[in-house]
Amino acid sequence: MPHISLPPEHIGIRGAMAFRPETAKPLNELVEILLAGPSTLSKGERELIATYVSSRNCTHFCASIHGAIAAAHLGGDEMLVKQVKTDFTQANISPKLKALLVIAGKVQQDGKLVTSADVEASRLLGATDLEIHDTVLIAAAFCMYNRYVDGLGTDQPDDEALYRERGRMVACNGYVHTSKEYLGENAHAASR
Amino acid sequence: MPHISLPPEHIGIRGAMAFRPETAKPLNELVEILLAGPSTLSKGERELIATYVSSRNCTHFCASIHGAIAAAHLGGDEMLVKQVKTDFTQANISPKLKALLVIAGKVQQDGKLVTSADVEASRLLGATDLEIHDTVLIAAAFCMYNRYVDGLGTDQPDDEALYRERGRMVACNGYVHTSKEYLGENAHAASR
Repeated sequence: MPHISLPPEHIGIRGAMAFRPETAKPLNELVEILLAGPSTLSKGERELIATYVSSRNCTHFCASIHGAIAAAHLGGDEMLVKQVKTDFTQANISPKLKALLVIAGKVQQDGKLVTSADVEASRLLGATDLEIHDTVLIAAAFCMYNRYVDGLGTDQPDDEALYRERGRMVACNGYVHTSKEYLGENAHAASR
Repeated sequence: MPHISLPPEHIGIRGAMAFRPETAKPLNELVEILLAGPSTLSKGERELIATYVSSRNCTHFCASIHGAIAAAHLGGDEMLVKQVKTDFTQANISPKLKALLVIAGKVQQDGKLVTSADVEASRLLGATDLEIHDTVLIAAAFCMYNRYVDGLGTDQPDDEALYRERGRMVACNGYVHTSKEYLGENAHAASR
């Protein structure tokens, strides 16, 4: 039961965004650029970073939906997503992504934990400054999205099929477009 | 020394934003709506929430600049800002704001720590659903901004006068307008 009167037909962050479309606009734009915009990291890789951080923050909605979007981008490989959540060091992902996940995991705890050695290790495996920047900001942003979803007590159902279906939709259509479904075409205007 | 090549002329989040103007746009829009947009919470109150969360995350740049902006909105009362950082329960602020700071402090740790009793306590002191929503999102957003600033190892000088001067400027002109100084008028176009 949410702490405030969120629209009951929308789960997780969607209820919070429908309640406050003004802030939903930049929140959707940020995630669209970071996870679905042009990048030398694949969409699957970026969704894995978001999933890993959400999983460490124990935010069921975000870990489930971004895990499902990641799987959709990775040919349906849900086992790989689970492996990244459980122990990414043993996952079948690139050494560069593993080094970036080390940085993301530290940002999830406290940005000050990231060391020059962590960054240098990722660089030696091919990470660019922009990839390192985006990894830090994806991890930081999901510390926000996770707290937003949890702090309002939003509804976070257990049904895996629901996340799988929605994950395919977001993977296909992107965040800003998909959000129009619950924000409306003119959602960016003031809601009240 | 930042972990990646940020423009050396800009401190804190400004260097990170100048490096990546595409993400700077929604990051600035979000903080503008939350801290400077229309609200039944005063700008000073909202800046105190941002300052308190940044202080708990020990992010010197954000705690200093938002503390300075808060003071600028509060008639220059820097002692009040320091009291909120140290122990807000003893500060000369409204009981409603104290109840909202309890919620913000829990979100800073983990959104799941917020209880119905915390929310009900703030409601009994006059907090509306929108004020509770915005408090949760301000706290969550500063967990992002703080990690972004710290995770990139940005330059966070100690000079109090520098934050005081900039605090007055942001209090006067707002975030999006002030950001044009380092992002340029056309900063929203792709930077590379």
